[in-house]
Amino acid sequence: MNRVPLEQKVLSENDRVAASLRERFRQHNVFCVNLISSPGSGKTSLLERTLAVLPKDARVAVLTGDIRTENDSARLKRFGFPTKQITTGGTCHLDARMIDRHLADWDLSDLDILFIENVGNLVCPSSYDLGEAAKIVVLSVTEGEDKPLKYPSIFFKAELMIMNKTDLLPHVPFDPDLCEENARKVHPNMECLRVSCLTGDGFAEWLQWLEQRRNAYLNLQPEVVSHR
Amino acid sequence: MNRVPLEQKVLSENDRVAASLRERFRQHNVFCVNLISSPGSGKTSLLERTLAVLPKDARVAVLTGDIRTENDSARLKRFGFPTKQITTGGTCHLDARMIDRHLADWDLSDLDILFIENVGNLVCPSSYDLGEAAKIVVLSVTEGEDKPLKYPSIFFKAELMIMNKTDLLPHVPFDPDLCEENARKVHPNMECLRVSCLTGDGFAEWLQWLEQRRNAYLNLQPEVVSHR
Repeated sequence: MNRVPLEQKVLSENDRVAASLRERFRQHNVFCVNLISSPGSGKTSLLERTLAVLPKDARVAVLTGDIRTENDSARLKRFGFPTKQITTGGTCHLDARMIDRHLADWDLSDLDILFIENVGNLVCPSSYDLGEAAKIVVLSVTEGEDKPLKYPSIFFKAELMIMNKTDLLPHVPFDPDLCEENARKVHPNMECLRVSCLTGDGFAEWLQWLEQRRNAYLNLQPEVVSHR
Repeated sequence: MNRVPLEQKVLSENDRVAASLRERFRQHNVFCVNLISSPGSGKTSLLERTLAVLPKDARVAVLTGDIRTENDSARLKRFGFPTKQITTGGTCHLDARMIDRHLADWDLSDLDILFIENVGNLVCPSSYDLGEAAKIVVLSVTEGEDKPLKYPSIFFKAELMIMNKTDLLPHVPFDPDLCEENARKVHPNMECLRVSCLTGDGFAEWLQWLEQRRNAYLNLQPEVVSHR
């Protein structure tokens, strides 16, 4: 049985909605990032610590996806920024229509940065454009250095790899240099950051990346904005 | 757009092949387990340590799935048991037809246990029956206690949860009792084991589980074999 034509139809419909989201983000100068990782790599912890250190008047919002539960939005709402849970009910990824629907009652002109936390899955979310300016792949140091080689699609599409849980490095057989080398085999220009959401190591660099990348986004003319 | 009818067709075709595999495993008394987890939870490490402690004449074989690379089969072949890599090339799960194809040149009457290591993905593999006698979900203690609630399908379908990397418990904010409690909210009769593939803690219990569960499988009359 050939599933490809239907999958292509679903993806091209998704691309249409994503392109319209990208255009709206551009009009309102909203820098949108799409965080993708395995379950438990620490996407929510990364956002918790990020929201904790941002100024209280930062114009930031979060959409967080899960198959079930509102646990993540409950964790993130504590920081006082607009936050919504997207519960997919079984679907293994977020799609552009879900983003569009959950943005309906937010005024994009109130925002500078929109964080999207995808469903925990290193495979399927990489196929669904959400209109983001950048995909970010998060990997924990407990997961093994060969993940970029085994799951190349998301490492090819993400422009930044965040290696999380570096506080555990003394306790796990994991070589962070080898992991970065593997990521750059898949994606030679991959930017890499090492952070610990427990200790805060690497957060200065992560916040700097966000600021610089957002400035680059704002300075890009619409006609030269490219999307992988 | 409604994808459901095609997905149902794909799944019912998969169920047909899986039922035929299940019948063949039954005829040859092969106890087959399907290991499912996030990327990096330690399925391959669990199998490495299991193969290392089994008698050299144990009648055991392994099929190991990944999107790309033959890394896992290279790690597992060292132990001298029949091992094959299934490289899906992008597909986020193993399906019954892949298992059927990769078993073609193995004589099932040579085997007592077949381990199937699925693609690292806590979502999609739970929908694809591979003809196994038991699904086992592996979770690492670095992943957070709420994973059973967020990804309920696989925790509902697995009869055993193996909590791996217990050697890291002193270093991570993780309550293993709470994790088991969450697993049993989804699946009240869930069996739970705690292991460390680094130290070997819990391996006696895991090997005992395998032996007892295999004996139960052998003693079941074909007409009372049930499958979730």
